[in-house]
Amino acid sequence: MDEQDHSHDSIMATEELAGGVHVDTQAVDDVRNAVAERDAIAVEKTLDEMDPADAADVVEQLSANETQAAARLAPEAFGGDVLAELSDDALEDVVESLNTRQIADAINEMDFDDAVQLVEELDDSLRAGVLSKLTPEVRSALENSLKFEEDSAGRLMQRDFVTAPQYWTVGQLIDYVRQASKDRLPEVFYEVYVVDPAFHPLGSIALSALLRAEREMPLTKIMAPLRAVVTPKMDQEDAAYLFEKYDLPSAPVVDEQGRLTGMIMVDDIVEVLQEEHKEDMLALAGVNEAGLADTVLETVRSRAPWLIINLGTAILASSVIASFSAVISKVVALAVLAPIVASMGGNAGTQGLAVAVRSIASRDITSANVRRIIIREVSAGLINGLIFAAIIGPIAYIWFHSIPIAMVIGAAMLINLLIAALAGILVPLGLKKLGADPAVASSVFVTTATDVIGFFVFLGLATLVLL
Amino acid sequence: MDEQDHSHDSIMATEELAGGVHVDTQAVDDVRNAVAERDAIAVEKTLDEMDPADAADVVEQLSANETQAAARLAPEAFGGDVLAELSDDALEDVVESLNTRQIADAINEMDFDDAVQLVEELDDSLRAGVLSKLTPEVRSALENSLKFEEDSAGRLMQRDFVTAPQYWTVGQLIDYVRQASKDRLPEVFYEVYVVDPAFHPLGSIALSALLRAEREMPLTKIMAPLRAVVTPKMDQEDAAYLFEKYDLPSAPVVDEQGRLTGMIMVDDIVEVLQEEHKEDMLALAGVNEAGLADTVLETVRSRAPWLIINLGTAILASSVIASFSAVISKVVALAVLAPIVASMGGNAGTQGLAVAVRSIASRDITSANVRRIIIREVSAGLINGLIFAAIIGPIAYIWFHSIPIAMVIGAAMLINLLIAALAGILVPLGLKKLGADPAVASSVFVTTATDVIGFFVFLGLATLVLL
Repeated sequence: MDEQDHSHDSIMATEELAGGVHVDTQAVDDVRNAVAERDAIAVEKTLDEMDPADAADVVEQLSANETQAAARLAPEAFGGDVLAELSDDALEDVVESLNTRQIADAINEMDFDDAVQLVEELDDSLRAGVLSKLTPEVRSALENSLKFEEDSAGRLMQRDFVTAPQYWTVGQLIDYVRQASKDRLPEVFYEVYVVDPAFHPLGSIALSALLRAEREMPLTKIMAPLRAVVTPKMDQEDAAYLFEKYDLPSAPVVDEQGRLTGMIMVDDIVEVLQEEHKEDMLALAGVNEAGLADTVLETVRSRAPWLIINLGTAILASSVIASFSAVISKVVALAVLAPIVASMGGNAGTQGLAVAVRSIASRDITSANVRRIIIREVSAGLINGLIFAAIIGPIAYIWFHSIPIAMVIGAAMLINLLIAALAGILVPLGLKKLGADPAVASSVFVTTATDVIGFFVFLGLATLVLL
Repeated sequence: MDEQDHSHDSIMATEELAGGVHVDTQAVDDVRNAVAERDAIAVEKTLDEMDPADAADVVEQLSANETQAAARLAPEAFGGDVLAELSDDALEDVVESLNTRQIADAINEMDFDDAVQLVEELDDSLRAGVLSKLTPEVRSALENSLKFEEDSAGRLMQRDFVTAPQYWTVGQLIDYVRQASKDRLPEVFYEVYVVDPAFHPLGSIALSALLRAEREMPLTKIMAPLRAVVTPKMDQEDAAYLFEKYDLPSAPVVDEQGRLTGMIMVDDIVEVLQEEHKEDMLALAGVNEAGLADTVLETVRSRAPWLIINLGTAILASSVIASFSAVISKVVALAVLAPIVASMGGNAGTQGLAVAVRSIASRDITSANVRRIIIREVSAGLINGLIFAAIIGPIAYIWFHSIPIAMVIGAAMLINLLIAALAGILVPLGLKKLGADPAVASSVFVTTATDVIGFFVFLGLATLVLL
């Protein structure tokens, strides 16, 4: 009874220690202070006492400089277990401060797929140094994975997985797993693949199905058909889509001959999804690759390029205004109202764009429904255009007591919201068709269109009507 | 040899049938045509021949009207296996066309967590009708889950899981699983929880660890401490964060007394991540809940409210311009240049906002680093301000041959980019602090600030300098 209570307490304590859903900010302060005082033992002690995932969370809270200083000071605190949990960003900072021996040791402690992610982050000379310190087997396996393109499924896969020949029984498979040396099996696996003599996967057996079956049962009787098979060249987003669609815990990877060559686990897919989300959101907002540990200069570098492009498009839109100086100098109300038309167009375009980018990413737009979606977007744009023309017209009339101005802004609003709807759906679809990322640069195109056309239509109509 | 080849062929065929990463647009057309011709058998045949996940993909391609017509025509094609895979959106359309008996039958075929998701989508009267057709056990289990708030972990959990008392051996556990009736165990599970007599979880055993262990091994020897424990009231985003952080395939759910009450699986978490991401992205762009099957009117309804708010803020910004009519009528160049200042501020603010919203969502901003992040954002804003002041000043000079105008726009640019940086980080942090979603409404606040302040500073300085 005593022992029982004790175990229970220790679990609850573990839960609290684990930090749960909150980052342990006390530990962040402790590490930061220890780094400032150059107290290597305190850095190591704080991080070692935590679950590696929590230690990684703490490190991710530090600035790039603090992370590098911590890694230089206490390299032992940055073992394979912690490095495996770090974001790419923080990982980059840590490895800059470790030597090749330390990195190689960490790699030897890591799962193979995590090791690939680490080696990816190393620059060429560091990578060569690290690889030379690994065993020939590990080195060649890593080199093989790195041959696959970045962001391909090949980079995510593990080389260890469990297979069974199709003529085995449940009992034979369980005995094999029990006796196999620890090195030959992945540390965690959720399913076993049944293969033919040429190593083509024939089906999979969830471990829960394996456990439930009688020992005498032939594997082929409990084997489920493979719902999804990944190839190493597949984009990681495509692989993630398969996991999502078929609710997979892991998936087999086959080479060009259809032979089993690896396995991808769902936890790597969860990371891919988070990474892709981040990329989409930042791309739509016009931010290049960005991390939280970024320095001020890195932050400027990630944002200034898109601001320069925006400056260009803003000047373009302003030159439209400039070409109507004559009418503006006569009717200042136009200078007051023009930004309203442009702003509404920009917003409506961004709305459509966000929906389109999201739907393309989740494979919800296909050739089977693209026509319907375009028609729907344009129809919605038309209706919104009518609604907001009917609202802004009277407002402009009350404001400036001019029926021509009221009619001009109403017409311009209608036209610009239609343009916004068209641009919001056609720009991302067009980028996709060209093989580009529909999120990148699309908001520049859309808002440029709505700004330029908004100003042009409003001021052009005003010139016709008022001059 | 013959049989072997045959199995292999059938697997490859399955892979192709499964559609892999592409939606089967041929099947979409087939269903659409069958619906148009009111050919119930063809609808049923097309969908039944596919993997349920692929059939769901096909249904998601249809418009709301087509989906409803298909479900009315061929309710048998919309069994529990397909409904479990449908997006909430499409699910809503389907259940509108099924009767309570058909929905109840589908629920009886589904995993419990999927059944909860379905019942969630039913309106009150339909829900009552469906619940009355279920067995008392299923009904009360569903009602218990629905007591938890929407978007809470309690809604995601299954009630079936596998536990073992702490004094069992590996062999005892395997025998138990093998003999347990199929109803008592979840269809798929990845780990077993070791519990004390009060049903508190003491640790977990991955099935792969269980398989590897000798039959005589006590479970406590191979049990791993629980890295994360979910509570039913926890927000689903918090639960997802735990899965991501600790690379979990499933997690135990405990009640307020710490007793095991359910289990959450990673495939539900993958859906939560996708859903939360969609929400964030649409919220940032000012779109209310939206789905691809939405009709034109639903699309208008999801976007018009934010456009109305944007109209208000645009009018506010324009009234700032109006208050400077005197100076604009003298120097039309100001009407040309003012939108550039506002546009740059809006863009820079949106950049910071996207990074902040993303970092808050991924728990990367905490009290331990928030000061550093704010300082970094403001510093980056200052540097970008200096850069773009130095670029726009000369451009304005070349354009309008006026040193005062060049100096005024440079100063206004610097100030507005600083404001943008402040608003981009402080608005989402403030919303978060108030308990609101940092993505919702934040871009309205940020762009209103940059528009109003951009116009005010530029035109105000111009008035001081030029008049």
